[in-house]
Amino acid sequence: MTKTTREHILETGLDAISVQGVSRISLGPLAEKAGMSKSGLFAHFRSKEAVQLALLERADALAHERIVEPAMALPPGLPRLEGLVMRWLGWTSRTTLPGGCPVAAALFELDDVEGEIRDAVAKLEADWRDLLSRTVREAVDLGDLSADLDVAQFVWELGAIYLGHHVSFRFTKDPMADARAGLALEALFQRNAP
Amino acid sequence: MTKTTREHILETGLDAISVQGVSRISLGPLAEKAGMSKSGLFAHFRSKEAVQLALLERADALAHERIVEPAMALPPGLPRLEGLVMRWLGWTSRTTLPGGCPVAAALFELDDVEGEIRDAVAKLEADWRDLLSRTVREAVDLGDLSADLDVAQFVWELGAIYLGHHVSFRFTKDPMADARAGLALEALFQRNAP
Repeated sequence: MTKTTREHILETGLDAISVQGVSRISLGPLAEKAGMSKSGLFAHFRSKEAVQLALLERADALAHERIVEPAMALPPGLPRLEGLVMRWLGWTSRTTLPGGCPVAAALFELDDVEGEIRDAVAKLEADWRDLLSRTVREAVDLGDLSADLDVAQFVWELGAIYLGHHVSFRFTKDPMADARAGLALEALFQRNAP
Repeated sequence: MTKTTREHILETGLDAISVQGVSRISLGPLAEKAGMSKSGLFAHFRSKEAVQLALLERADALAHERIVEPAMALPPGLPRLEGLVMRWLGWTSRTTLPGGCPVAAALFELDDVEGEIRDAVAKLEADWRDLLSRTVREAVDLGDLSADLDVAQFVWELGAIYLGHHVSFRFTKDPMADARAGLALEALFQRNAP
């Protein structure tokens, strides 16, 4: 077995935050699921916050591997932007994660609290918006989208469609979730066509 | 003091679920905030689930009082629909609630669990979609929106804009949150103009 204990804890924990959310994770049950004692877990992470931060980092790394890297391999402009958005929507269901996107959930869990976990989530959200903004801007510069496009507004509406899809796909389990998001995206892209 | 103890527990609890979410509420801290013992609280509610269900019901009653009743007093068609949507977006901030919408948060908290709390949230979400659908249909029937409008799609997109606004207003605290939602709504209504 080459997998380190730390790796094993993080894999188990990522499954847990995908289901329960990053705020509701408890170290006792996590240690138990990982097959160790709570003090064994504390040998690898100094605090609950350290575990939560490492799990958010791991979720981000997984999103980059599954969404960003394959999208960046596509030609810049509309193909890359559409590739990014289509891989983003419902992305956790195309991994081995048992639940939803822990960052999306944290945007509702942590809106009214302060602290380093909220700050880490805010950074992930801002970085994601930057990535989307750069990719939209590239499509504008290449003439694939209107030169008048408001990048921040376009990205805001992409985010709203992502959240709407998350709820209809994961919570209400609407068989039309993908189709509804597709129609909303089509309207957004058409409105901003060159 | 005419307020019953049950009322007092529910008021305190509604503040708590607006901040923490309905899943993360604990009866110990709730009893303490309400100025009573945990066993005192159990004299009014037989279980944690009973408290959670009563709190969701109370959140729904508050939403009806603050959003639905004033909107229904407006003329049917576009005025009523727009009145409903504008009162819905960011509604908790126009009450004394200290946090966000507990139902919106629960759509992310409870997507991967089963049980009566999830069922209650699913019913509130479905009832809300029904109310929006009826109000959109009324605007179509009165000729205020296109006869070709897909009601389920229109309501899906309203829901996405609501969630996008919740995140940008409450989590990222974007001063442009209302303006961004307004532009997205304007585009949706224009696309479906008669």
